[in-house]
Amino acid sequence: MTAAAAFRFELTTRPAGPVAPRTGRLHTAHGIVETPVFMPVGTLATVKTLLPAEVAETGASIILVNAYHLYLRPGHRLIERLGGVHRFMRWDRPILSDSGGFQVFSLASLRKVTEDGVRFRSHIDGSEHHYTPELAMEVQQALGVDIAMPLDHVVPGDAPYEAAAEAVQRTLRWYRRCREAAPGLPTFAIIQGGTHPALRRYHAREALQAEPPGFSIGGLSVGEPKARMWETVELTNAELPIERPRYLMGVGSPEDLVEGIARGIDMFDCVLPTRLGRNGALFTDTGRLTIRNAANREVDAPPDPVCDCLACRQFSLAYLHHLFRNDELLGHRLATHHNLRYLARLVERARQAIRDGSFEQFRREFLARYRTADEEARLASRRRM
Amino acid sequence: MTAAAAFRFELTTRPAGPVAPRTGRLHTAHGIVETPVFMPVGTLATVKTLLPAEVAETGASIILVNAYHLYLRPGHRLIERLGGVHRFMRWDRPILSDSGGFQVFSLASLRKVTEDGVRFRSHIDGSEHHYTPELAMEVQQALGVDIAMPLDHVVPGDAPYEAAAEAVQRTLRWYRRCREAAPGLPTFAIIQGGTHPALRRYHAREALQAEPPGFSIGGLSVGEPKARMWETVELTNAELPIERPRYLMGVGSPEDLVEGIARGIDMFDCVLPTRLGRNGALFTDTGRLTIRNAANREVDAPPDPVCDCLACRQFSLAYLHHLFRNDELLGHRLATHHNLRYLARLVERARQAIRDGSFEQFRREFLARYRTADEEARLASRRRM
Repeated sequence: MTAAAAFRFELTTRPAGPVAPRTGRLHTAHGIVETPVFMPVGTLATVKTLLPAEVAETGASIILVNAYHLYLRPGHRLIERLGGVHRFMRWDRPILSDSGGFQVFSLASLRKVTEDGVRFRSHIDGSEHHYTPELAMEVQQALGVDIAMPLDHVVPGDAPYEAAAEAVQRTLRWYRRCREAAPGLPTFAIIQGGTHPALRRYHAREALQAEPPGFSIGGLSVGEPKARMWETVELTNAELPIERPRYLMGVGSPEDLVEGIARGIDMFDCVLPTRLGRNGALFTDTGRLTIRNAANREVDAPPDPVCDCLACRQFSLAYLHHLFRNDELLGHRLATHHNLRYLARLVERARQAIRDGSFEQFRREFLARYRTADEEARLASRRRM
Repeated sequence: MTAAAAFRFELTTRPAGPVAPRTGRLHTAHGIVETPVFMPVGTLATVKTLLPAEVAETGASIILVNAYHLYLRPGHRLIERLGGVHRFMRWDRPILSDSGGFQVFSLASLRKVTEDGVRFRSHIDGSEHHYTPELAMEVQQALGVDIAMPLDHVVPGDAPYEAAAEAVQRTLRWYRRCREAAPGLPTFAIIQGGTHPALRRYHAREALQAEPPGFSIGGLSVGEPKARMWETVELTNAELPIERPRYLMGVGSPEDLVEGIARGIDMFDCVLPTRLGRNGALFTDTGRLTIRNAANREVDAPPDPVCDCLACRQFSLAYLHHLFRNDELLGHRLATHHNLRYLARLVERARQAIRDGSFEQFRREFLARYRTADEEARLASRRRM
């Protein structure tokens, strides 16, 4: 059975409309994923610092790998010969791959976009590559993922209307080529259009023609104001069929998960929990905890007393502080584990609240307690004045 | 009960003499250690990259921490207030601490040795400290370790006779002060004397007066020829009572473990397995395996097919190669785990061979197969000629 044949999405609660919270179930060739879901990022076929069994222990049911990175190193054909990316990295649950469109346009140099594809130089060794919609699908097929992304033409978040419109048209054409190139892969449509409402609506409506198995909202969380991002999510979701999954790409702070779920998003991914973990910041219900703060030096209690992760069950905040002050890798592991566990619990709490019909209350209470990084910074600068 | 009251060593096989292989058992306040044993190094109260449970899984029954490092950061009094180093790092098996003599003389700057102790500047922040035999014991007592080392006066391995002799005399006087300062701690005598046979013999004989619970052989494996090191171990062990444990400090390559055990050493420690692991080298019975070698790129088999470690049970050498080429921390973890497991199995094999009366055969066969790093380098340079 192909990944596409195995793929199915069902709603398990009936949402109030296209822009409303919902729970669902993604059926894939490697098992079922309850939604809303946060997908840990394993760019290079490893969720940084963790064993696959540990990622699963956090409650993660699906992870993301990156086709651009694995195409460059070690190469998709090598992974294919070794039995596919699941076997290569020893992760037997579902995997979604990003096509690498975003990476080609952000990491690689000397890009030249034509209708055929994009020519670029590798960010690793400067070697020249020609990446096409067909090649992006060839890579993802060789990896053997459960859900694929098409190659899209990415423009900066503040690109003017004309440039954004051209990218949308090209992304639509490329999407059709992707579907033809890999009919056996469930390949979502990526909706672009920056923060131009008309373009977003247009892209969503046009994408519908190809009957995508799911929709990704790309090009957000790239520096635009938060209010703008949520307006864009709302007007995009308003165009999308209720019964298909929606994936908000690259978004993964706790407050953004709650706000996205409130607007009918089913899937999220972001490097934030793993990257912040390696930098010594922990998610908690009241905001981010900075492990290195001197105040934590002698705290003989779990970093987050309500958390059941490996770090909080076993170690004191004082010990984590000690590990981070000395740049010990065990600290990176423990903080990464905590943050992934935190987000897995957060989406589980959201799912439960949706099922109970109490999501609005959950959202209100969560946001009232949670101090975002922006708010922290504002408070700190006010104290300095 | 004090750590000293709990401490006892028993031989479980009768050696042929003072310079012959033997098995034994260290009884400590935190449990029993079968010897010969390799002790993984957890300098800063963490065996780099691993959880305590994983260190235990490798088969390690005792680890080493460093008093100098923990005195500087986070401070021994803080660890004492948090319940001691076992509780701080969540390791409930025995812990041996090095006094930090070696580190004071190798890492710190602006050292000034007087009879009272050694004044130095911290390698971390340049702060000035006065480390004395009494302070070294205060630190180790606060940590709550099971076996302590005295402060010794360390001189370079190639120090002339007069300088080495003066250091030996001072180390003898300091040892008496250490024992008086901490009668509740089992504190080994460290035997110094460089590679001067007369000094080594003198130090060993004089140290006996204080009836040490065990003996450490220091100042070796610092660049002297291997033959010189083993001669020194032999003549030192020849002076020591058969029924007391002997610890060869800072030695831990597979071939050196086998050679040390052959000469009646009971305990070893070294950063080699953990450091080599982070650099991508794995111990095997035929020598070191360099994970990054291009030849390993597509090897769909365990790194070491006869090994039962986490890495070899689960992952392919091709995947480890991929992790190391991309500097992924999971690679560091897996290689560290493998090397510690390898040494734990090696000492277990040696213990079994001693019990079976087949150690000489084991040693001969092991050394015939094992290609040391020196031999590899010689072969490589011959190929280049």
